[in-house]
Amino acid sequence: MSSSTAITNIAALVTNDPSLRDGDPLGLVRDAAVVIDGDRVVWTGETRKAPATDNRVDAGGRAVLPGFVDSHSHLVFAGDRTEEFNARMSGRPYSAGGIRTTVAATRAATDAELEATLVRHLREALRQGTTTLETKSGYGLTVDDEARALRIAAHHTDEVTYLGAHIVAPEYADDPAGYVALVTGEMLDACAPHAGWIDVFCERGAFDGDQARAVLTAGRERGLRPRVHANQLTHGPGVQLAVELDAASADHCTHLTDADVDALAHGDTVATLLPGAEFSTRAPWPDARRLLDAGATVALSTDCNPGSSFTSSVPFCVALAVRDMGMTPDEAVWSATAGGAAALRRDDVGRLVPGAYADLVLLDAPSHVHLAYRPGVPLVTGVWRRGVRVV
Amino acid sequence: MSSSTAITNIAALVTNDPSLRDGDPLGLVRDAAVVIDGDRVVWTGETRKAPATDNRVDAGGRAVLPGFVDSHSHLVFAGDRTEEFNARMSGRPYSAGGIRTTVAATRAATDAELEATLVRHLREALRQGTTTLETKSGYGLTVDDEARALRIAAHHTDEVTYLGAHIVAPEYADDPAGYVALVTGEMLDACAPHAGWIDVFCERGAFDGDQARAVLTAGRERGLRPRVHANQLTHGPGVQLAVELDAASADHCTHLTDADVDALAHGDTVATLLPGAEFSTRAPWPDARRLLDAGATVALSTDCNPGSSFTSSVPFCVALAVRDMGMTPDEAVWSATAGGAAALRRDDVGRLVPGAYADLVLLDAPSHVHLAYRPGVPLVTGVWRRGVRVV
Ligand SMILES: [Zn+2]
Ligand SMILES: [Zn+2]
Repeated sequence: MSSSTAITNIAALVTNDPSLRDGDPLGLVRDAAVVIDGDRVVWTGETRKAPATDNRVDAGGRAVLPGFVDSHSHLVFAGDRTEEFNARMSGRPYSAGGIRTTVAATRAATDAELEATLVRHLREALRQGTTTLETKSGYGLTVDDEARALRIAAHHTDEVTYLGAHIVAPEYADDPAGYVALVTGEMLDACAPHAGWIDVFCERGAFDGDQARAVLTAGRERGLRPRVHANQLTHGPGVQLAVELDAASADHCTHLTDADVDALAHGDTVATLLPGAEFSTRAPWPDARRLLDAGATVALSTDCNPGSSFTSSVPFCVALAVRDMGMTPDEAVWSATAGGAAALRRDDVGRLVPGAYADLVLLDAPSHVHLAYRPGVPLVTGVWRRGVRVV
Repeated sequence: MSSSTAITNIAALVTNDPSLRDGDPLGLVRDAAVVIDGDRVVWTGETRKAPATDNRVDAGGRAVLPGFVDSHSHLVFAGDRTEEFNARMSGRPYSAGGIRTTVAATRAATDAELEATLVRHLREALRQGTTTLETKSGYGLTVDDEARALRIAAHHTDEVTYLGAHIVAPEYADDPAGYVALVTGEMLDACAPHAGWIDVFCERGAFDGDQARAVLTAGRERGLRPRVHANQLTHGPGVQLAVELDAASADHCTHLTDADVDALAHGDTVATLLPGAEFSTRAPWPDARRLLDAGATVALSTDCNPGSSFTSSVPFCVALAVRDMGMTPDEAVWSATAGGAAALRRDDVGRLVPGAYADLVLLDAPSHVHLAYRPGVPLVTGVWRRGVRVV
């Protein structure tokens, strides 16, 4: 038997329900309440109109928003790349193996070690308000290591992505075609049961457009839905391939032609921007304003991984998007919640509307704008997931 | 009677004691321990050499560093400028009163309201590892309102700065000379008993070099030590005046000539950089590298205030300094601890050496580098202040 709880006295409630206020995408309600029953939202509106409930929580004039939906992370890994980061930021030479360092350490790790690291970062993300988190394989690059990464991930999150095509495995350095055959053959057979998505790093030095197409279409034939690492470091075919294959998301989108922007604006593929990567590699920022003005749907995610973006903080990404990518605070908050949900083709998270999961965040601030106004400050003071308060 | 506690099993201990390791300013010790007795550090070194103590705390292979010394904040204020920030970042026109909005609200607030806001932000800063925090008046701008701001601040921190010369008070808009006379006369008389420092905003539109000199010298005659808001928005005389008057710190230092850099390199005035301000106003970054290469001492602080930098997060400032100001992670951590202490002319905080206060931070990370490597993530998991664990 479920019991109902009203969270009342919310100064600013972000619902992401555009029907509430003249099409405002954020569906902001002042002096608001949310009613939860079991694991779902059953009512939102002004506190004075709230229905009777079994329990009541006073939000104390603070802000509530949907839990963050982080649609892009790489959290099944082992090893330590602190010194590589330190050397890069200090201008010191360092013979870094890059992703290969993490691949070697991940292969050498036990299942228990991989799981402990994943769980630690999932908890860290949850404390910062992330209630839905996608994560990927991609540091195993053998049939067994990719399959176990996905198996471990699937125990802890619903959104699991097979990224055997992260880089060409070191063993196949001289035979990339052979590696693509493995990724689309035996490795896919072993991985498909544990994942919902297939992803490929479509970039010079990783996989070209033809290889990426082969990977994604093979995955689709096995029931995996496509998403693409696209146009991060250079212009390339990734974004347009993603739209052509109706991928849920093209991720990074840092280097876009007008044709790329046009494709995103007219397709159903979300442009997922990952400012943590540009922050941590001192790269130029993706231009969110250009995408929004063209009519594309934009998501914000962390890309949390030990090499290029070791942040699990969606609030930090919101602050960067506002400062450096031309997003308004409202747009950035939408993109980190409803945008992330769109990038996972979900409508049961990322919004606080009747029927959606009761995943929500209480800020120690009177407005969602404070996520940008107070950068770096840990403002998340309460988190409910599936109707249960977990922070 | 005091009791001794050893914090052991520290993977990386930042002491800021250059005598420990060949002049490394950070004085980093691996596999380290710190021994606290009462409110002081009495010993640091390798865990296996630690002396016997009454109590023992296992740091679990994590990093420990001195508590942050935030030498520049403006936390005696009232009012809400969220909409001003939101409009600025959204490109919407907004008839903002700027600092004047905060002045009006601060004057209208009760003592209890001002104190509650100050205490809330001090606690927030403490949770993020700030164990020494300077704060200023400057939103009262009348004799009584400046004096009460300082009185309230002095109840909660040792480092209190009289900033009557923040802007010319609205009532004196047509008589800036009259306002300087007030700041250096009756207002100084009322304020000097409650403050240790005097500060002036030396900038076009605020106070020019002659006015700033008058303010600082008047304060010095009353026993207040000088510090200066200098060269934030434009080139100007602030930095060189600060060095000439042996101010403890010239704060902001965003627009510097070669002569300014030279003066800082050869004087005893610390260059305190406040990247939160540049972040939140989308201004160009101060060039820490240039200052360090010239031999200047650099501090990092938050400038926490509701108008131009509403962050209380020193870790966030460290990450920005590494990403955008040319500092190495080691340099940024030093500047946020020992640098802040130098900017307050303190040697009893900002370092973990025998005799210094036992103010220290335990990170949920194996290295201090993670403050830059994991931007936005709330890594501070333990804080000791004066030997007492408070977080
Ligand atoms: Zn990625
Ligand atoms: Zn200031």
